[in-house]
Amino acid sequence: MHVAILGATGVVGQEILSVLEQRDFPVTTLRPLASPRSAGRTVTFRGRAIAVEAAGPDSFAGMDVVLASAGATVTRELAPAIRKSGAVLIDNSSAFRMDADVPLVVPEVNPEALPAHRGVIANPNCVAIILTVAVAPIHRAVGIRRLVVSTYQSASGAGLAAMQELRSQARDVLEGREPVPRALPHPIAFNVFSHNAAIGPEGYNGEETKVMRETRKILSDPDLAITATCVRVPVLRAHTESINLTLARPLSPERARALLAQAPGVEIVDDWERNLFPMPAIASGRDAVYVGRIRRDLSQPDGMGLDLFVCGDQLRKGAALNAVQIAEAVVASRAAKVPAAPAEVAHG
Amino acid sequence: MHVAILGATGVVGQEILSVLEQRDFPVTTLRPLASPRSAGRTVTFRGRAIAVEAAGPDSFAGMDVVLASAGATVTRELAPAIRKSGAVLIDNSSAFRMDADVPLVVPEVNPEALPAHRGVIANPNCVAIILTVAVAPIHRAVGIRRLVVSTYQSASGAGLAAMQELRSQARDVLEGREPVPRALPHPIAFNVFSHNAAIGPEGYNGEETKVMRETRKILSDPDLAITATCVRVPVLRAHTESINLTLARPLSPERARALLAQAPGVEIVDDWERNLFPMPAIASGRDAVYVGRIRRDLSQPDGMGLDLFVCGDQLRKGAALNAVQIAEAVVASRAAKVPAAPAEVAHG
Repeated sequence: MHVAILGATGVVGQEILSVLEQRDFPVTTLRPLASPRSAGRTVTFRGRAIAVEAAGPDSFAGMDVVLASAGATVTRELAPAIRKSGAVLIDNSSAFRMDADVPLVVPEVNPEALPAHRGVIANPNCVAIILTVAVAPIHRAVGIRRLVVSTYQSASGAGLAAMQELRSQARDVLEGREPVPRALPHPIAFNVFSHNAAIGPEGYNGEETKVMRETRKILSDPDLAITATCVRVPVLRAHTESINLTLARPLSPERARALLAQAPGVEIVDDWERNLFPMPAIASGRDAVYVGRIRRDLSQPDGMGLDLFVCGDQLRKGAALNAVQIAEAVVASRAAKVPAAPAEVAHG
Repeated sequence: MHVAILGATGVVGQEILSVLEQRDFPVTTLRPLASPRSAGRTVTFRGRAIAVEAAGPDSFAGMDVVLASAGATVTRELAPAIRKSGAVLIDNSSAFRMDADVPLVVPEVNPEALPAHRGVIANPNCVAIILTVAVAPIHRAVGIRRLVVSTYQSASGAGLAAMQELRSQARDVLEGREPVPRALPHPIAFNVFSHNAAIGPEGYNGEETKVMRETRKILSDPDLAITATCVRVPVLRAHTESINLTLARPLSPERARALLAQAPGVEIVDDWERNLFPMPAIASGRDAVYVGRIRRDLSQPDGMGLDLFVCGDQLRKGAALNAVQIAEAVVASRAAKVPAAPAEVAHG
């Protein structure tokens, strides 16, 4: 496969490179692309340094797959050129996620949505990916009527600069200096704050709106009642979520645990004795979505409510890994329908 | 007033000393007490160094008020001696909080509970104090049917050693060393973890059980449906809470904001334009409970659900300040019924 990485020098782009390598993705050509500012830098793939090119409309000729993590505006601009090239765009930005003809895919949750793509497949918001991997088995088994989620989101969701800011501010505080916010609007070291995405007319911030809408789309449940509160915490790269469920039909915590133990992409960490549950110190750098604190919600009728505590690496399952899993599914579907239809026709 | 501070060298004891000083509490004698290990150290009050004595049954003679923050076991042991001395015990531990004849008081919320005390008044759990200051005005106005809370609790709740551990682990991580947990069971720097209180038979940890029971008692609402998920975050001293409410009668966010703006002990920080909301960087070292992100919960019928984001200093309103406010109420009630009844009789 001829693979372009759009946003190759960013924190997600870097993680995509290492996931492609670790999972032995069938890469024939790798083309790292970034903004003109980053052109000329190199990235390392399979031990080789490859020069980064400035991304433009001509960057995609001959590519099979474009893995993009370049932000919504840039991706929107370049999407027509990518479509024209015949490459499949797997986009990590929010640009196309809610478009009716764009599948929004978490391979463990809704792989059935993928084949309908018309050249663009969207990688969901990181919180929505981690959330749906954890709750989809319960949703399938008994239905979820309402979901309340509060997040503990790491700095990596705001990029490399925010991760560096967390480290440098932590040093400032330890050495008695006032931390100065630059990449993020408020101090992140030794602080937590409501996610800084802009607040919409109903009082939800943009991150919360993404989580709510995208979760409904991934679970194919437009009626799912959901409210999210998204919060940044001084953690480097894994997102944690406190999830409260109101179920449509009864489910015991024991049965929920059994369902989740068999669920793809899920690891149970629920050791009541040792007080060991999902946390960034476990999930960082790993692929699974960790689920624990699986317990009956005592505020709801017996069997009708559950509490969960979930953690997943935002850069891996929340971004790069999920995108590469989508690319793997694209490769598998191409292999299944050889000879491939001409790209222009297939992509409408 | 003759005032003893039990646990004077601990982080809450230290904060009690500074709150007494700042609020100009009418202290005639101050007797700092601690474990034999800390005896001989000094604490500073109104610029004077005062020697700390080892606490024992004979420590309370002549005292009017004992402000205790010494843990449940020690306080249980010393309580009979305190009662016998005639002093009023204002206890920050969980020892007596759920006893039927012990008022559990947040002065802004349920001052009416205080006069019934029989020598012991309990200071609630820090999360429950901050929670009830924020939700009591709504509970009074329209009733709360169900409450879902997820917390972001600072290291201070686990004492001075945990605060020091957060700082030293942060330094370890920045300098490339593996953080070693000692005071807390898991790494706290750059991590979050489910609160380490022991897990009970239904899967809730001890902190969550306290929050759930105490909130019902403070609000005098034994039927309130409540579920809590308590989580430690790498913050030094303020606790944040993400609160979801199901209301008994409709209330708009605008009306909720107006109620809260007038509520004692509450400061509204809810600036949608500037994306400025309650956070430890605002609340640390301050007295108010900060409330923001006041919005309609879109997952519930219009007017029947609200989301709130709340932050308060755990050491001040969550512990020392609330205890001193209780002591002030005790002083006021004594002044009101001069000449005071003999202590032995008053305390049964």
